[in-house]
Amino acid sequence: MSHTPIITHLDDAGITAPQGWRATGLACGLRYSGRPDLALLVSSVPATAAALFTTNTVKAAHILYGQPLLAENPTGLQAVLVNAGSANACTGAAGVDDCATVAAAVEQTLHLPTRSTFVMSTGVIGTRLRVDKMLTGIEAAAAQLASTPAAALLAAGAIMTTDTFPKQAAVRVQLADGSSFVVGGMAKGSGMIHPNMATMLAVLTTDAAVSPEVLHAALRHVADRSFHCISVDGDTSTNDTLLALANGQAGNPPITTLDSPAGKALLAGMLAVAQPLARAVVRDGEGATRLVTIHVRGATDDAAAHQAAMTVATSALVKTALYGADPNWGRVVCALGYSKTPLDPGKLVLWFGGIKVFAHGVPLDFDERSAHQLLDQPEVVIEADLGLGTGTATVWTCDFSYQYVKINAEYRT
Amino acid sequence: MSHTPIITHLDDAGITAPQGWRATGLACGLRYSGRPDLALLVSSVPATAAALFTTNTVKAAHILYGQPLLAENPTGLQAVLVNAGSANACTGAAGVDDCATVAAAVEQTLHLPTRSTFVMSTGVIGTRLRVDKMLTGIEAAAAQLASTPAAALLAAGAIMTTDTFPKQAAVRVQLADGSSFVVGGMAKGSGMIHPNMATMLAVLTTDAAVSPEVLHAALRHVADRSFHCISVDGDTSTNDTLLALANGQAGNPPITTLDSPAGKALLAGMLAVAQPLARAVVRDGEGATRLVTIHVRGATDDAAAHQAAMTVATSALVKTALYGADPNWGRVVCALGYSKTPLDPGKLVLWFGGIKVFAHGVPLDFDERSAHQLLDQPEVVIEADLGLGTGTATVWTCDFSYQYVKINAEYRT
Repeated sequence: MSHTPIITHLDDAGITAPQGWRATGLACGLRYSGRPDLALLVSSVPATAAALFTTNTVKAAHILYGQPLLAENPTGLQAVLVNAGSANACTGAAGVDDCATVAAAVEQTLHLPTRSTFVMSTGVIGTRLRVDKMLTGIEAAAAQLASTPAAALLAAGAIMTTDTFPKQAAVRVQLADGSSFVVGGMAKGSGMIHPNMATMLAVLTTDAAVSPEVLHAALRHVADRSFHCISVDGDTSTNDTLLALANGQAGNPPITTLDSPAGKALLAGMLAVAQPLARAVVRDGEGATRLVTIHVRGATDDAAAHQAAMTVATSALVKTALYGADPNWGRVVCALGYSKTPLDPGKLVLWFGGIKVFAHGVPLDFDERSAHQLLDQPEVVIEADLGLGTGTATVWTCDFSYQYVKINAEYRT
Repeated sequence: MSHTPIITHLDDAGITAPQGWRATGLACGLRYSGRPDLALLVSSVPATAAALFTTNTVKAAHILYGQPLLAENPTGLQAVLVNAGSANACTGAAGVDDCATVAAAVEQTLHLPTRSTFVMSTGVIGTRLRVDKMLTGIEAAAAQLASTPAAALLAAGAIMTTDTFPKQAAVRVQLADGSSFVVGGMAKGSGMIHPNMATMLAVLTTDAAVSPEVLHAALRHVADRSFHCISVDGDTSTNDTLLALANGQAGNPPITTLDSPAGKALLAGMLAVAQPLARAVVRDGEGATRLVTIHVRGATDDAAAHQAAMTVATSALVKTALYGADPNWGRVVCALGYSKTPLDPGKLVLWFGGIKVFAHGVPLDFDERSAHQLLDQPEVVIEADLGLGTGTATVWTCDFSYQYVKINAEYRT
């Protein structure tokens, strides 16, 4: 018990909450006039970095630029530049050159070492970065960097596309030995949201000192329990990037294994930031009116539980029924049935908002009106017990509304 | 060349076009008042039967009843009873008993051998059959069976749920040796449409004489080129059933191999009926405003081409863009990228409605207005050449509209 870290959520805080981090966001006219579209994040010292990228074969230019950068220099990252409006994907070699140009501009403006800036893009596929506007924006951003909560919020707002609210979180992690560190984060989502990666872009910062291998292992562990457990529309984007940065400014001894109290505290702290960010991405999914938690237990193992839960989470018929607050459990049974995981309908039990609706192969009598009212809420829980084993999984999805179709059907102009 | 069969489409004909088949459809009040919801199909002699069923682990009662029936008696099927309104899925042992009850009623009423009636259901999951109303309906249907085109149309209309038009087709197949036979078919689709099976229900009838093994092999070959190439919403139903029946009344020598001229003619004839039925299911997909053909070539093999094409066909972002007639090729590239098939963006070429929009890793300049107009049509073609090999596939999907959401979000009353 004495090894359990104390985790305190820090209200209205984000990527600048840990020591030694400054950020900002501003409008430089990349796509939306007058809307913030450029974010800059800078550490006072070189930071250890780890990242997870989209599994899509088609990768955005910033991934083609950033992946070798991190491999070459995993302890020397000092800045992150993020733009919204253009995904800089399917832009060929010229798109990667554009990344190099804007990264070099950040390094020169801030007098940072070469190859110390990571770049991220989000927006429409197939359009080039507007490098000239970004160079002007970088100058302005460098002049207004700050470590305040307001500065973190500016950055979180500048990376949004069709997001309707900025997404950030931060926690203080206190260890039993009296030492502590802070983890902050920001994310953007909206459409093309499906693991893995399950988020378009997210950044976690910490002032803990962490070795690159441990930071990477921690990031994978945390992603499997947060960003890899969400779906908005089943489309895995070309740009998905989750970046973690640790600059060691908390003064703690470097964390070199996840099995130590400090390692476990790091996992707990990162998860405490990543999970609310992942849920916020779903809550703000394009056209979403509800956040839906799907909990599967009794599966043959955790992987089967995850696959079953994600199949329910991506079913268009389940998601439209949830939009209508329809307790249409038949569609959930159907999706479990085609999830390609072991299932025996005779052992299945299903709850909608806590009401048992189906058990052991047959529907139960329940008050459809009460069930409808329970589902007609901003947050809804569906539970399935497969009755086969001890595997469990929790995933988050949103409903499928007219608005999703409208947002994505509109002719781009 | 002399072995090529001549295939003639028979207008306004369906399951009663081959010799020895009678059918009808009528309203017996199962769910929709006054709407036809019960179809009956009868052969004058026992027919050879083959069927493909849903791969969903949760199988409707009619499949639990019909699968052993066909295994036990593959040459003795004489009647098919189809109801709309209730899927009779997730109804436990009682649901299977209901199938036995209504099948026995058909056999008694028509003086057919026991275990000669196949049953199919479509509609809402979790509701029992209304056996009493069906028994009355069976009596009435038996009295009005006919071999006319009008009778086939009544049957095709009675199996509809949210379908907006009946789907039937028939062809005459003439062999070089002067012999001929006829293939007819009907199908219903609408929602929960995704291979395999890719249709809720379809029946193919023929008066050719075919051995059970050959009929089954022919059905699989034909399904892989028709019903397994369509998607409406990516949900694989609990009820999907494709049934083929051959009663030998054309007087041809029994077809015992697909490698013979008669075997190839059978494949051609069945495909000539199944493919337009499959396309009609997509055209009439819930809320669909366009039929979209996706053709992939240059894949490493046909299976990879099929998987790539189906991934594009099921992408919510591609389908909503098609609803808006938006030439948003980035979403197609993205879907190809996460299709888990080999892809090299540098070799990919993409056409929207015949306009080349992307080639070898970079977007091309094209007139977006013309592309928009080409996409704003009832039928649209998207082509992708992956540039990797000789694999090809063609699949059909529909767009994703407000109406799809509306149909599926409405509270069941």
